Amino acid sequence: MISTIGVFDSGFGGLTVLRALAARLPRARFAFLGDTARLPYGSKSRRTIARYAVQSAQFLVREQGAEYLVIACNTASALALDAIQDAVPVPVLGVIEPGAEAARAASRTGDVLVIATAATVESHAYAAACRARGLRALEKACPLLVPLVEEGWTDHPVTAEVIRIYLAELTAEAAAQGMNPDTLVLGCTHYPLLRPLIEAAVPEGMRVIDSAEAAAEAAVRLFNGHAAPVAGEAAPAELLLRCFATDSVEKFERLGSRFLRRPTGKVELVDLGG
Amino acid sequence: MISTIGVFDSGFGGLTVLRALAARLPRARFAFLGDTARLPYGSKSRRTIARYAVQSAQFLVREQGAEYLVIACNTASALALDAIQDAVPVPVLGVIEPGAEAARAASRTGDVLVIATAATVESHAYAAACRARGLRALEKACPLLVPLVEEGWTDHPVTAEVIRIYLAELTAEAAAQGMNPDTLVLGCTHYPLLRPLIEAAVPEGMRVIDSAEAAAEAAVRLFNGHAAPVAGEAAPAELLLRCFATDSVEKFERLGSRFLRRPTGKVELVDLGG
Repeated sequence: MISTIGVFDSGFGGLTVLRALAARLPRARFAFLGDTARLPYGSKSRRTIARYAVQSAQFLVREQGAEYLVIACNTASALALDAIQDAVPVPVLGVIEPGAEAARAASRTGDVLVIATAATVESHAYAAACRARGLRALEKACPLLVPLVEEGWTDHPVTAEVIRIYLAELTAEAAAQGMNPDTLVLGCTHYPLLRPLIEAAVPEGMRVIDSAEAAAEAAVRLFNGHAAPVAGEAAPAELLLRCFATDSVEKFERLGSRFLRRPTGKVELVDLGG
Repeated sequence: MISTIGVFDSGFGGLTVLRALAARLPRARFAFLGDTARLPYGSKSRRTIARYAVQSAQFLVREQGAEYLVIACNTASALALDAIQDAVPVPVLGVIEPGAEAARAASRTGDVLVIATAATVESHAYAAACRARGLRALEKACPLLVPLVEEGWTDHPVTAEVIRIYLAELTAEAAAQGMNPDTLVLGCTHYPLLRPLIEAAVPEGMRVIDSAEAAAEAAVRLFNGHAAPVAGEAAPAELLLRCFATDSVEKFERLGSRFLRRPTGKVELVDLGG
């Protein structure tokens, strides 16, 4: 009996988390839902985001039989994790706590930088999760990075320059606050595609934490602690994955394969209502 | 008796149209609605966009007493103009037909370039409106330009480089198709803020058409044809404007003033439902 892991995002960036999960749990079956008709979540209220995220989680559990759930969306993790945990009877993991935990393990100075979307930064969820672990975190919104990834400019001089500008502003602000950061958290599921450019731009010796990888590590620990049905020895020939989207299936198939680094297969359209 | 002109956009880019209108109709009163809770319209279906746009138009006419309506949103103009005209009993003008008409007046070769968002390009509304006037149009989606404007990088070397790349791709494609374009239409209400950089990047002698300006010109002609109550001699000391948004009033106030080139005043939150 193969277990099904449900993975949810407002878009398709969460496929970077699914890819990291699949590498660790090769015998699991995955169901991914991108709530693309209602993205971006970032500009919406907490109540609306919780309603959308709960509907999405219930679809994965009730309709797709997911026995575990990963919220591969920073905004939903920041604003709706409790509501989702209350609404479905399966273990649920977000991306923010694992990212903060990985930063704690990596940092020696205790000072951490976080780059993310404007919505995630405004929630200060990473700062709170870092503070709970005795870390000081400085967060910066980098609103151009998602559009640059979606334009496909993941290895482009313009993107390298934008990253250089954002990181220079962030490290200058950290220095002005007397911080000595040694760790940078990628707090958005789009950013792993920019990791080579980001690694090239950070100061010498700074550790880069990918919250997608951190979430996948944490998910394996959490899910194995429950029943251990998903860890396997040998990778199956194919990824057992069904992808669902609430709108624009073509765009999902086109862009999703970049995040997954393999074709998504046929994406199925679902209607979650208003 | 001062007439009220309702101006509608999914966001606040349409304030560039309102600014152009106010310069021509200094004695009019304006009500602007940004349906920010439901943006972007671009990824949504025609039926959903029409429903949202009709609700927004009805709010401006029924609640705010608008006697004229300008749809300062390319996506809604492309996909919902008929539905809006059917739903409200006042003259309604979109931005696409005036932009195409201005291109016809400007072009001598009959070959026109259009830059716009992905959604507007995919609708091919500009190409159809140009074809109806005997013009050949080549459209290109420039998805990074709106985020660059919203980041405030309207006079930034990175933005200049992105514009140079997009225009080089577009003119190369036009040449490959045997076109001889002499006119470029800015088919997005965000792009007027980039006009200086765009003017600097186009080939020598190419005319740049701002669809916001073109729509304002057409609105004055249309509305004066109906009753001529809004054209005045002297500009009032202040712009008579009430702004409404369906979400994120703070962001609207912060960014809107860049498009309007003056403070928006206090933005009022409205709930249009679903």
